[in-house]
Amino acid sequence: MLIECVPNVSEGRWPEIVAAMAAAVRAVPGIRLLDHSSDASHNRSVFTLVGDAAGVEHAVLALFERAVAEVDLRTHRGEHPRLGAVDVVPFVPIQGVTMAECVALAKRVGAAVAERFHVPVYLYEEASNNPARKNLEDIRRGEFEGLAAKMTTDGWAPDFGPAAPHPTAGAAVIGARMPLIAYNINLATDRLDVAKKIAAGIRQSSGGFRYVKAAGFRLEARGIVQVSMNLTNYEKTPIFRVFETVKREAARYGVAVLESEIVGLIPSAALNAAAEYYLQIEGFSADQVLEQKLRRARDSGE
Amino acid sequence: MLIECVPNVSEGRWPEIVAAMAAAVRAVPGIRLLDHSSDASHNRSVFTLVGDAAGVEHAVLALFERAVAEVDLRTHRGEHPRLGAVDVVPFVPIQGVTMAECVALAKRVGAAVAERFHVPVYLYEEASNNPARKNLEDIRRGEFEGLAAKMTTDGWAPDFGPAAPHPTAGAAVIGARMPLIAYNINLATDRLDVAKKIAAGIRQSSGGFRYVKAAGFRLEARGIVQVSMNLTNYEKTPIFRVFETVKREAARYGVAVLESEIVGLIPSAALNAAAEYYLQIEGFSADQVLEQKLRRARDSGE
Repeated sequence: MLIECVPNVSEGRWPEIVAAMAAAVRAVPGIRLLDHSSDASHNRSVFTLVGDAAGVEHAVLALFERAVAEVDLRTHRGEHPRLGAVDVVPFVPIQGVTMAECVALAKRVGAAVAERFHVPVYLYEEASNNPARKNLEDIRRGEFEGLAAKMTTDGWAPDFGPAAPHPTAGAAVIGARMPLIAYNINLATDRLDVAKKIAAGIRQSSGGFRYVKAAGFRLEARGIVQVSMNLTNYEKTPIFRVFETVKREAARYGVAVLESEIVGLIPSAALNAAAEYYLQIEGFSADQVLEQKLRRARDSGE
Repeated sequence: MLIECVPNVSEGRWPEIVAAMAAAVRAVPGIRLLDHSSDASHNRSVFTLVGDAAGVEHAVLALFERAVAEVDLRTHRGEHPRLGAVDVVPFVPIQGVTMAECVALAKRVGAAVAERFHVPVYLYEEASNNPARKNLEDIRRGEFEGLAAKMTTDGWAPDFGPAAPHPTAGAAVIGARMPLIAYNINLATDRLDVAKKIAAGIRQSSGGFRYVKAAGFRLEARGIVQVSMNLTNYEKTPIFRVFETVKREAARYGVAVLESEIVGLIPSAALNAAAEYYLQIEGFSADQVLEQKLRRARDSGE
């Protein structure tokens, strides 16, 4: 069983503190810390770790222990919006685990965080049943500075823990979501209006695909524009449909797609689905992927 | 390090004999027997096993020991052409191993087979430097029945072992090759001539792509035709180029591609290359595939 977890911590300026947090995660048996990176202007660090349910639960609690001790939101300044010391904790199903199991894990971890650290916890995305509290942006609106007031208003009692912020650690947002794909399409034009119109056409917020967030940007150095996207559920809104729609919309303005780019990681299932679509492969199964078959044979210990 | 090996044995009618061969392979430490299947009319069995170089070497020698003891080519009958008891042994690089290492392995196993079992060995595909002895079909032409005469003719001394066939086990063809992709494209027509013309256009033997073997067939039950292919080097002749060419050639006759199908296994790199091509992904690296990154983290024991 493999679950990915990507905790975001509100500390990105003191390397020793971040290193101690990374060490606390690495010390948990069965956990791999794949990556961690800090941004000083955001004053924020992002950790990427994988393991089974028990392992990631322990690792996240170890991270909370360090962060609650080290981070003081009252003096924390940074460009990135934040609500708490450990700001966001998404659990992502990767292999041999369902979304429902990740939701259960998020709730278990949320209850433990509230109990052990007296930090209020909001559930988000798949772990939340409340439409007003699914989106991270909605929960985080007002930030740490507005949290005490927000928590007393109707509908903003936390899912776990006290009905007031932790004095230095604020609140945490914990949940479960699909792997996110950061995907950009570059257009062979310098017309920013075209990129913005296409972005508006494909993103959910203005009537486009349900699991697409998008914006249009100028790539100054190259003299071209970009449709920059987050694909938040590649199974329900697949990458190939988004690509073909952008290509078609661009053609409407006489503009060609120059190239696309995957930023960071992409699940192999998302790439396989694109190959399957374009090559019109019928009856394809993931078991036909050589490496997958080998992995299963190894894991089964046959 | 992972090497795939797909020995073909000239026995497909006696399940107990095939089961004993499978057991001999499975008994080798570090070897996984992924699959084995027998065909009675071909009177032939195909084993698919994976492991490191030392493991597959031991497994292949164990298979030779059983096959040389059990198979008698003098009385062997079957539809499939064959030269020996263990007829063909390809080594295929999968992960953490180069083609050059698989070639070296093929030569080492070839020398060992000749020495231990007095079976002459021909090297083929990447393991052969002789253009007349790269193709399996060329080496096997004349079959077991014509082997004694063929071995005395110019240019047909074996690479290892005696210059005459083993009396009951014939000769073996051992080499190294890329993973093979069995790929079919079904056309929305019943015109066999169209499938045959397209097959002729894309296969190497009649002027097409270098690493494509192809033939046109009728799928009687469905009333359609099929271009059936083996892609013998998906890096140099990628699947997407073959698919697009078949689609274009079919359009020439007013015929559409109905669907395609992957028969058996396909390396993930071949699927990723198709996704990359159609989505126009620039600067893509296999390290961006989530599962690959996880596998590396696990294997490195970090």
